[in-house]
Amino acid sequence: MRDLVIARFGRTPASGVEKNDPDRLQIPDSEVPRSLFQALARCVGERRVSTDRMDRIRHAVGQSYLDLIKLRRGELETVPDVVVYPGSHDEVVHVLAVCAKEEATVIPFGGGTSVVGGVNTRPGKHPTVVLDMARMNRLIAVDTVSLTATLGAGMRGPEVAATLLPHGLTLGHLPQSFEFSTVGGWVATRSAGQASTGFGRADQLVRGLRCATPIGELQLGRGPWSAAGPRLLDLIVGSEGAFGVITEVTFEVYPLPERQRYEAWSFPSFAQGITALRMLMRELGPGMAPDVCRLSDPDETAITLALSRNTWATRVARAYLNLRGHGSSCVAILGWEGSVHQIIWRHRHAMALLRRHGAVPLGSGPARSWQRQRFVAPALRDTLLDHGLLVETVETAAYWSDLPRVYEAVREAVLAELRPWRPLVLAHLSHLYRTGASLYFTILARRDDDDPIGQWTRAKHAVSQAIAEQGATITHHHGIGSDHAPWMEAEVGQVGVTALRALKAAVDPDRLLNPGVLIPDEADDGQQTTGETED
Amino acid sequence: MRDLVIARFGRTPASGVEKNDPDRLQIPDSEVPRSLFQALARCVGERRVSTDRMDRIRHAVGQSYLDLIKLRRGELETVPDVVVYPGSHDEVVHVLAVCAKEEATVIPFGGGTSVVGGVNTRPGKHPTVVLDMARMNRLIAVDTVSLTATLGAGMRGPEVAATLLPHGLTLGHLPQSFEFSTVGGWVATRSAGQASTGFGRADQLVRGLRCATPIGELQLGRGPWSAAGPRLLDLIVGSEGAFGVITEVTFEVYPLPERQRYEAWSFPSFAQGITALRMLMRELGPGMAPDVCRLSDPDETAITLALSRNTWATRVARAYLNLRGHGSSCVAILGWEGSVHQIIWRHRHAMALLRRHGAVPLGSGPARSWQRQRFVAPALRDTLLDHGLLVETVETAAYWSDLPRVYEAVREAVLAELRPWRPLVLAHLSHLYRTGASLYFTILARRDDDDPIGQWTRAKHAVSQAIAEQGATITHHHGIGSDHAPWMEAEVGQVGVTALRALKAAVDPDRLLNPGVLIPDEADDGQQTTGETED
Repeated sequence: MRDLVIARFGRTPASGVEKNDPDRLQIPDSEVPRSLFQALARCVGERRVSTDRMDRIRHAVGQSYLDLIKLRRGELETVPDVVVYPGSHDEVVHVLAVCAKEEATVIPFGGGTSVVGGVNTRPGKHPTVVLDMARMNRLIAVDTVSLTATLGAGMRGPEVAATLLPHGLTLGHLPQSFEFSTVGGWVATRSAGQASTGFGRADQLVRGLRCATPIGELQLGRGPWSAAGPRLLDLIVGSEGAFGVITEVTFEVYPLPERQRYEAWSFPSFAQGITALRMLMRELGPGMAPDVCRLSDPDETAITLALSRNTWATRVARAYLNLRGHGSSCVAILGWEGSVHQIIWRHRHAMALLRRHGAVPLGSGPARSWQRQRFVAPALRDTLLDHGLLVETVETAAYWSDLPRVYEAVREAVLAELRPWRPLVLAHLSHLYRTGASLYFTILARRDDDDPIGQWTRAKHAVSQAIAEQGATITHHHGIGSDHAPWMEAEVGQVGVTALRALKAAVDPDRLLNPGVLIPDEADDGQQTTGETED
Repeated sequence: MRDLVIARFGRTPASGVEKNDPDRLQIPDSEVPRSLFQALARCVGERRVSTDRMDRIRHAVGQSYLDLIKLRRGELETVPDVVVYPGSHDEVVHVLAVCAKEEATVIPFGGGTSVVGGVNTRPGKHPTVVLDMARMNRLIAVDTVSLTATLGAGMRGPEVAATLLPHGLTLGHLPQSFEFSTVGGWVATRSAGQASTGFGRADQLVRGLRCATPIGELQLGRGPWSAAGPRLLDLIVGSEGAFGVITEVTFEVYPLPERQRYEAWSFPSFAQGITALRMLMRELGPGMAPDVCRLSDPDETAITLALSRNTWATRVARAYLNLRGHGSSCVAILGWEGSVHQIIWRHRHAMALLRRHGAVPLGSGPARSWQRQRFVAPALRDTLLDHGLLVETVETAAYWSDLPRVYEAVREAVLAELRPWRPLVLAHLSHLYRTGASLYFTILARRDDDDPIGQWTRAKHAVSQAIAEQGATITHHHGIGSDHAPWMEAEVGQVGVTALRALKAAVDPDRLLNPGVLIPDEADDGQQTTGETED
């Protein structure tokens, strides 16, 4: 890795202009009025109301590249005035009432892993209260007959897994942020886990929820499915804390799979790989196709092989693939979970289809290596930042017919915009549907140390413009936050934005909740179509 | 059948107090103002604007029992003033603009098969314009790679099937109203077809749509899936014509199945049948479990066998089942569609599981008979009405754990309310999910000829109350219409109703569209919790 960074970008660890050192940060004093502090303390108890410096810094931003850069450079525009830790739905309701009365802004905060400005404190005339949901981490109900579990919104991935395990159940939801992100965050942002092809997305797994809005409680979901009008559940799912605070979620869960089988396959080209995965979904469909499907493009494949620790095995694999005409091969990770019988049958059908499309099996070694490292990318990113690199991810989804040109358009936009900084774009296709799939891009470049924020803001704008022009969705699983809010009109049109504003006005008339996310500012209306980002 | 009606209800064909004879109907003259008529004629051409008596009667109501009774008794409260047949999205937009200017009410009308008052003209001070979508019946686009098809909202079931066939595709959506109901109607009401267990519901198959609202066009759906905020698509899906007129729908479609396999199985009891179907969904899941699953309760099973034309075979089957201890058996129809290989494997797994749960195969005969008659129930209903019977259906869905008590509660409510009229309640479980299923009830009784409307209104109220009290959904696939609108607060709470009203006010500020459906009248707020029906 070090060699790659030096060779490709001419950067060394010494190139990192600043380390991640919150102690150096200058932040303003908390401006929480005494009346607000006392009222909050009455809601949740005084030791659950924090104006501690580190608490406030930790809750100021999410985990986007720009968030990290701002933290490292000590350029936070603002931090919250107070962090509150409610322990129940009723405490959340009380906090909302207090904040309405005291004219404070409220930002619901789960794992804080948003990469799109979904939890950032923004400058404004009202004090900002961050609602950290970590204490609401209990299993509320489990029904092993109906396969449902009602979970506190503050439960993190490992807590969910550990809680369901004794019941022989799993949620099957594994976003890259699994270790930190929460039930409420997954639902508020329509998170898609790495096994979403088989297990479904968080938003597809929600059967019901409880949400505290400023005008009262919303309790939605009566049974497995309904035709009772517009699906209001799908208004709170994806609402990113702007319509209410999700406090409990009822998920559809799965019996723990008896067995897992993960393996890697190589394709002679990205196009052939895409076709093969499309045919898997067409011929087998979700449930019979592999539960995890992830196909790297040639650059991501090459970097993955180059960074692989087992260099001897990697060389053998490379030589073998060259022999088979897979010189610029693409590697796919495929995973099956379920009963032994079913995996055998499903694997046999997939294997026949993959071979018909020119794929070559690479065994379980590379797949196990991917499984081991599936949650480490965020940590790796910190190291790359230390080396003075720009590193960020963007993602979208498109129909199968459109995927090749969306892929090209995004790559071209990034490469053109970042050309002076020797950019590298790695991509993979994942989260398969019968009609299309997601494309996920990792972008690396030398950082422009004079203007790192401008450098990425312009690149992000170029990418978003390319995605919107191609008719693909601005986000498949990161969410809107503030970064994508200017693109909402391209996504849902002017009438769609009007509908969102009407909903916001109805359930949050005083605009308490998470300002700046989801809905483009009305003041920006003139420039929405050009998609100016707010940063 | 005749014997049954006479024996059970003491009714003969002569008991039918009135025949379905629209010629006898007294209806008011059309009150369409000349300026409105001329403006509509400019939108769509004069011969597409009808004030014809039969046209107006045909578009006055849907197909609920009360609708049919009112038609037969000549008791229609009102009929539309004019029926308009637009031919394009732009014509719909123009009609909406004209109706806004002329202060007319607009009712979008597909197949007119609503059984919950979804298309009924209501008395009011404005002229009523019915928008019959039948001319918008063209295939707009098909993508055989991505497996999507964009269809005109006015296409009926057989038109959709015939249009997709040459492309080797099917939508797989088979509601009982298939022959008459339309693409737009399926989406506006969240229709679930008979094969929804495998193919999905209409609302799950929608990938995008185009909708003309009074404030402008909504075009939603950019690719297979998205995390771009609340899913606005799910606001128009299920909006029942109250938020806009759906003009085009992009559906996910399927390759035509290579083969079908349908067969009947018998279970010793309804409870054992429910458990077996639950385990099919738990162990195999959608995609691997049968695509069609429909389990009749003992009464529905008995009536179906009694009405079966092939009495010799029926007697043999009965004798065989008695031998096997299935004296009060429940019969299930199971259907698989797909490739030969997959059907063999899926069938083998299902068969093993069904046998473990005490099921006995009855072969394909009864299943074929069901397939032949799957769309004839509405016609059968007319015959029963001729015999002077009350006949109506109600449906709900619940989690597996709750299904037995929901089943009992609905039966008890109906039997208690209709006791003087020798009621018969037939039920089946269908539309399976991993977490639950739908329950569908057919209710038969002697009609109270003195007050048939009051008789059913009270029974319907009792059923709805029972469903709401059990925490089940007020409708799994019939929709809300006006009949279920008073139960919306039980379904989505007061905040949910507020959100619906805010949306309606935002996209239809002049309240042009389909008044009375979906959203309880604000004037009714005081009595919503008691769920008074409006009729």
